[in-house]
Amino acid sequence: MAFPFEIKATEGKARTGVLKTPRGDIRTPAFMPVGTAATVKAVTTDQLRSSGVDVVLANTYHLMLRPSAERIARLGGLHGFMRWDRPILTDSGGFQVMSLAKLRQITDAGVAFQSHIDGGSHLLTPERAIEVQCLLGADIQMQLDECIELPAEHKEAERAMQLSLCWAERALNAFATRAGPGQALFGIVQGGIDAGLRRRSAEALVGMDFPGYAVGGLAVGEGQELMLTTLEGVLPILPAAKPRYLMGVGSPSDLILSVARGVDMFDCVLPTRNGRHGLAFTRFGAINLRNARHAADPRPLDETSPCEAARSYSRAYLHHLVRVNEMLGAMLLSEINLAYYQELMQGIRAAIGAGTFAVFKAATREAWERGDIPAFNA
Amino acid sequence: MAFPFEIKATEGKARTGVLKTPRGDIRTPAFMPVGTAATVKAVTTDQLRSSGVDVVLANTYHLMLRPSAERIARLGGLHGFMRWDRPILTDSGGFQVMSLAKLRQITDAGVAFQSHIDGGSHLLTPERAIEVQCLLGADIQMQLDECIELPAEHKEAERAMQLSLCWAERALNAFATRAGPGQALFGIVQGGIDAGLRRRSAEALVGMDFPGYAVGGLAVGEGQELMLTTLEGVLPILPAAKPRYLMGVGSPSDLILSVARGVDMFDCVLPTRNGRHGLAFTRFGAINLRNARHAADPRPLDETSPCEAARSYSRAYLHHLVRVNEMLGAMLLSEINLAYYQELMQGIRAAIGAGTFAVFKAATREAWERGDIPAFNA
Repeated sequence: MAFPFEIKATEGKARTGVLKTPRGDIRTPAFMPVGTAATVKAVTTDQLRSSGVDVVLANTYHLMLRPSAERIARLGGLHGFMRWDRPILTDSGGFQVMSLAKLRQITDAGVAFQSHIDGGSHLLTPERAIEVQCLLGADIQMQLDECIELPAEHKEAERAMQLSLCWAERALNAFATRAGPGQALFGIVQGGIDAGLRRRSAEALVGMDFPGYAVGGLAVGEGQELMLTTLEGVLPILPAAKPRYLMGVGSPSDLILSVARGVDMFDCVLPTRNGRHGLAFTRFGAINLRNARHAADPRPLDETSPCEAARSYSRAYLHHLVRVNEMLGAMLLSEINLAYYQELMQGIRAAIGAGTFAVFKAATREAWERGDIPAFNA
Repeated sequence: MAFPFEIKATEGKARTGVLKTPRGDIRTPAFMPVGTAATVKAVTTDQLRSSGVDVVLANTYHLMLRPSAERIARLGGLHGFMRWDRPILTDSGGFQVMSLAKLRQITDAGVAFQSHIDGGSHLLTPERAIEVQCLLGADIQMQLDECIELPAEHKEAERAMQLSLCWAERALNAFATRAGPGQALFGIVQGGIDAGLRRRSAEALVGMDFPGYAVGGLAVGEGQELMLTTLEGVLPILPAAKPRYLMGVGSPSDLILSVARGVDMFDCVLPTRNGRHGLAFTRFGAINLRNARHAADPRPLDETSPCEAARSYSRAYLHHLVRVNEMLGAMLLSEINLAYYQELMQGIRAAIGAGTFAVFKAATREAWERGDIPAFNA
């Protein structure tokens, strides 16, 4: 089915609205934290909710291997398993097969691979990817696609794009048979950084009438400028009334610039992964807490943050936790970063709603460029 | 100073009461979670508080090396640093010097050692141990002692016990000069598992009139029976009106049997360390969540637990988190275990108060021995 998608305001190509799913509203533009193995690393679902997260992403590849989609289905589905009763989007597993699995063999049928964990053989087809996502009980599902590495030969990019289109058809058919009324399937535009291939991919997918469209195969090393150029080519082809999801993106700057081009949904491991490595995202830009400048600083990361941890723990304490490798450092910085991402998305939504997105965008970028507050001299 | 210590009820040798410190009451018998490096691993201080923790322990050795006591003092002390405004007990650093540091050299003056982190040279004397604990702002401080490995020659145990007594005197003098009115210093009984040495140590320390007494050098491999026998020899010598702290102990069974012999305070890494390794403490005894019997079990660890995580996450989910090494597994099991320890202590306190400790002790041990609920057959 297609979830109702209400666009409440636009400013230039940027839009804000609500995607209404049976498990709750997704306010767009939305950032989805990544819950790879049925947990957003180092945070609880209560923390996600209180930072304003509407939807999380989970990884089909990881879950089909451990603990397996069948086991999660027998346990009542992914929502209950991980104690998150709001929407879940699952990827199709394709991207992780390409980046993690061993001995991949791609045929028209699908992709055969060996698990990176125990070497076990698996076959992922467009139909199996839907079956797994239905077993998990995902609200928004993704078609299986082939995501190639960049740079790539034109011929190779074209082959993968065409294969992804075939798989899109098959995914639609499988989804029609298998899925329930509260679920939706998104198609994925591929084609590398070739404008012509991207156009053909987008047009063919639009012809299949998906309830939502993702742009895949970006943010894989091509750089921000090429990513944005590619988006500028693809997004106008996609129907304005349907949600647009940019997969695996990105930095706060990527988000704001992609929203300006018309993207509605994002997911990325950056806030949690960087948090585990001692990096904080703030309105002052990214702050490396490993840096000695914070060692004696009694001030919080950001005294005006809506996130209590960002307001109340000293930089000196966060620095200490990161330096001595304490789990609490990863926990607090993951929470702080996810909260900053949500604060940013909330700011974006409010600004588009008020017709002040251009001002918001400039002010936010200016604050990042101004950088962190001066170091504390004890 | 001596904090007021009100013993509210006794049953046999077991006692329950309140140690009143300026930073808050410590309900005894009390279990203190260990916050080695200014954090109880994988839990927040809010979680500690809501599970009923009155006091935490922090490690002088770790904090003097990183980030240093002087830095913590400049930042306003350990309470603010780690955001815990209730009582903190610090050890003297002696035990960790013996177990972690390199190139230790013990003289009458103190112990010279090299940091296990960067090889830097340090000298820990009875006076320096007090200085560090005062810089940290610890509410309850411990004298420097020498904790030997067991088994040990009588002569060696006697030498270390005598040295610890000399250091106790010096600690008292240093404390009198350095400490503030809201702080207390405990002496530590040593002497290995030799009843005669333990008696001499305890009697000499009682003569010095400490406001509280610890029993050190136990739970280092001698076994529960010898530990309890040693306690039975030492505790009657210590003044009944003062708190008694058994250092580094222990398992739930150790706690209940030591309380029965008159111990008021405990600390141990067991609930958090075992939690990080997939082991849960429950009223059914210890449960290893790594075990395949939990893989498909939709039931919570303990549906009657006061801890929400123990009541609400399925065993299958906890098993999954532990198996895939997700941080959330360590976080939830640390929280669950600390909550169980507090539930146990609360049960002990209430039972002594009601004169039903013998019944509580038997019923609790019987439930542990009965073991876990039968495995779930899916």
